[in-house]
Amino acid sequence: MPRASVRDQIVEAAFEQFHRHGYNACGVKLITDSAGVPKGSFYNHFESKEALALVVMDRYGETRHLDKLTDTSAPALVRLRSHFEALAQDIEDFGYERGCVYGNFSTEAADHIPAIREGVAAAFDQWAKAITAAIREAQADGSLTTRQDAGALGRFLINAWEGAIVGERAAKDGSSFAAFFTVAFETVLH
Amino acid sequence: MPRASVRDQIVEAAFEQFHRHGYNACGVKLITDSAGVPKGSFYNHFESKEALALVVMDRYGETRHLDKLTDTSAPALVRLRSHFEALAQDIEDFGYERGCVYGNFSTEAADHIPAIREGVAAAFDQWAKAITAAIREAQADGSLTTRQDAGALGRFLINAWEGAIVGERAAKDGSSFAAFFTVAFETVLH
Repeated sequence: MPRASVRDQIVEAAFEQFHRHGYNACGVKLITDSAGVPKGSFYNHFESKEALALVVMDRYGETRHLDKLTDTSAPALVRLRSHFEALAQDIEDFGYERGCVYGNFSTEAADHIPAIREGVAAAFDQWAKAITAAIREAQADGSLTTRQDAGALGRFLINAWEGAIVGERAAKDGSSFAAFFTVAFETVLH
Repeated sequence: MPRASVRDQIVEAAFEQFHRHGYNACGVKLITDSAGVPKGSFYNHFESKEALALVVMDRYGETRHLDKLTDTSAPALVRLRSHFEALAQDIEDFGYERGCVYGNFSTEAADHIPAIREGVAAAFDQWAKAITAAIREAQADGSLTTRQDAGALGRFLINAWEGAIVGERAAKDGSSFAAFFTVAFETVLH
């Protein structure tokens, strides 16, 4: 396998460090130290920490199990549950630490850095759209009533998930994820 | 009116600055500058930034409209809506910036600072308990079915609200709050 480029090393290290420490507590030096590259090499590849954060968001997007939503071998409601279960498993594997990169960046940086705000908003929109499409499919196959607006449900569910993460980072006991699965799948998607 | 003590001036300034910038981006110097007191005076009143953050969380708790949940002049479901509407109004008044101090601290500091994690967890528990009590009342007066577990609903709703804030800080267009009120009050509490 070819050795990862310096740029790739920086992106992978930034993914890890941003996820672990958040945006503000993670400086360029922490990223380059963690990547094992000289700090000076950073600016050969990225204009700013902010520009790197946008690349990290794309990289994070690839890990978000969106494929589970579009795998038509299972019914739409089953896929929705698999999607959120996979997201939950990832966070449980980190002991309820780190949270979601989108949520972290939204909370920490969206008010102050327009490009990050726009990047997070676009990522949430894309995610909500994929959830909404699966909800529409469940409404079409009769497993979900059509009395609710699929778009509002999709937006509500991604936010409820982001909030369950906020709850778990404080409690770290599984209670917020459990409440999410109970209410989302026994009441909201019912 | 007597002049605010130096300690009170620091707490008020910290409330404002933590809320505006988050935990990590807000240092002791920013707080004392904003309070108009010498940096050296900080440690006469607080052991650390962390200790001050706990005081700010208590101060923030007083602004959270929990009184609306216990005002028995209105039915429980009406009070639940008034409570969340008041929380929404506060955030709309800041142009969807700043978010919730509890959620911000949970996201930024809970993984790394045990006392903050515990403080946020206790605040969320207290809030969830107040919401759950109102839900139980609505179940008892027949305005809500008893088929759902009130505790899970209460936990779910506070998290869904925290997540709606995360969504709004990115989109800043009211769509996440609108989805919250539609789904929470037309489907979840139904």
